[in-house]
Amino acid sequence: MASCVQLLGASPSPYVNRVQMALKLKSIEYELIEENPHIKSERLLKANPVLKKIPVLIHDGEPICESLLIVQYIDDAWNNGPSLLPSDPQDAYLARFWALYIDDKWYPLYKELREAPTEEARKEVLDKIFEGLVLLEEAFLKCGKGKPFFGGDNIGYLDIALGCYMGWLKVIEEMTSIKFLDRSKTPGLAEWAEKFCSHDTFKEVVPETQKLVEIFKMVQGRGKPASG
Amino acid sequence: MASCVQLLGASPSPYVNRVQMALKLKSIEYELIEENPHIKSERLLKANPVLKKIPVLIHDGEPICESLLIVQYIDDAWNNGPSLLPSDPQDAYLARFWALYIDDKWYPLYKELREAPTEEARKEVLDKIFEGLVLLEEAFLKCGKGKPFFGGDNIGYLDIALGCYMGWLKVIEEMTSIKFLDRSKTPGLAEWAEKFCSHDTFKEVVPETQKLVEIFKMVQGRGKPASG
Repeated sequence: MASCVQLLGASPSPYVNRVQMALKLKSIEYELIEENPHIKSERLLKANPVLKKIPVLIHDGEPICESLLIVQYIDDAWNNGPSLLPSDPQDAYLARFWALYIDDKWYPLYKELREAPTEEARKEVLDKIFEGLVLLEEAFLKCGKGKPFFGGDNIGYLDIALGCYMGWLKVIEEMTSIKFLDRSKTPGLAEWAEKFCSHDTFKEVVPETQKLVEIFKMVQGRGKPASG
Repeated sequence: MASCVQLLGASPSPYVNRVQMALKLKSIEYELIEENPHIKSERLLKANPVLKKIPVLIHDGEPICESLLIVQYIDDAWNNGPSLLPSDPQDAYLARFWALYIDDKWYPLYKELREAPTEEARKEVLDKIFEGLVLLEEAFLKCGKGKPFFGGDNIGYLDIALGCYMGWLKVIEEMTSIKFLDRSKTPGLAEWAEKFCSHDTFKEVVPETQKLVEIFKMVQGRGKPASG
């Protein structure tokens, strides 16, 4: 019997997109149940009573929460398709470490950028963002080992951990006229981003930039559009 | 050839203790290199330039950072000794989910408790701590399945994720005269804590309560004693 897989989510959420990418890479069929990120539905509260947020993967009735944990779970629970995490313990550690860095340290800087009260504060945040990108360039060279993706020849855990933000990064680039992934500064990362964003894993999951811009304008002032 | 394992840490740090417990459970010999948690040594900055904090495990020259990632790495890299994470994907997910909950949501409440500006604020934080303990009691029943530990018959990933805080919890109990692990409120968790704290994994790693109380008094006002 085929297993039943549902995803409580919202298409503009990078965290939901991250899970969708993992499901796609593993060729897992699923039903996306759209949640309004600003209203907590009964279904969501029942599935994720502790964190009360999307995404939630429901696999044969059991809820799995937190996007990075969901990706790990997908990799553990389905043997079909490529492994998302490297099999080498050191490589797997590096993928997990940088994924955490991206979620906890780097991407939150864009919220700080939006909320910077002065031009000086804004410049400081921008410096931190670019310092982070230099670290991620080094991580790319170390993890990718000269191959096109962090995961080597194929998209893996760290690719989708960073790649899920690329849709919103394009929006921020458009709104601020700042080029974050610049070939002159971080050539490896800039090339990676181009390859990743032209891959089906990205294109079939992440909404187009103009659609995200519209959503951004709509929810501006209410905090980030969707988190989980 | 035996591998070379060093741990940059400080004995009073629960995060360092967490790693020490994992190393002990896997019977891995290591050298503890004491770091002063208030002064970043050159060695620490070189080993962990991104986060600049203890613990750092150095395995054959390669640094591994972030205590939960280190425990995962230890489980991946050494096949000897018991598995720390459950082999079942759903059980492994639950262990990771609750470990994250403990680090990100529950234990930080004790810092909030110490810093609560009013009696009302203090009461609110206390309510949240006890709500968290009720959630952890439920998690214990689900993960432990009637066995003595979260990991079943043996101490596992989630046991050490929560158990590493038990030394400091005793200090907080002593300083506040509040019993957090109370048999009348969360009987499973209270019994688990007694078993865990009388186990060699805990006793041989975590400093005695009176020593921690002295350290607490010494660093009070400087923030938490050691983090990583």
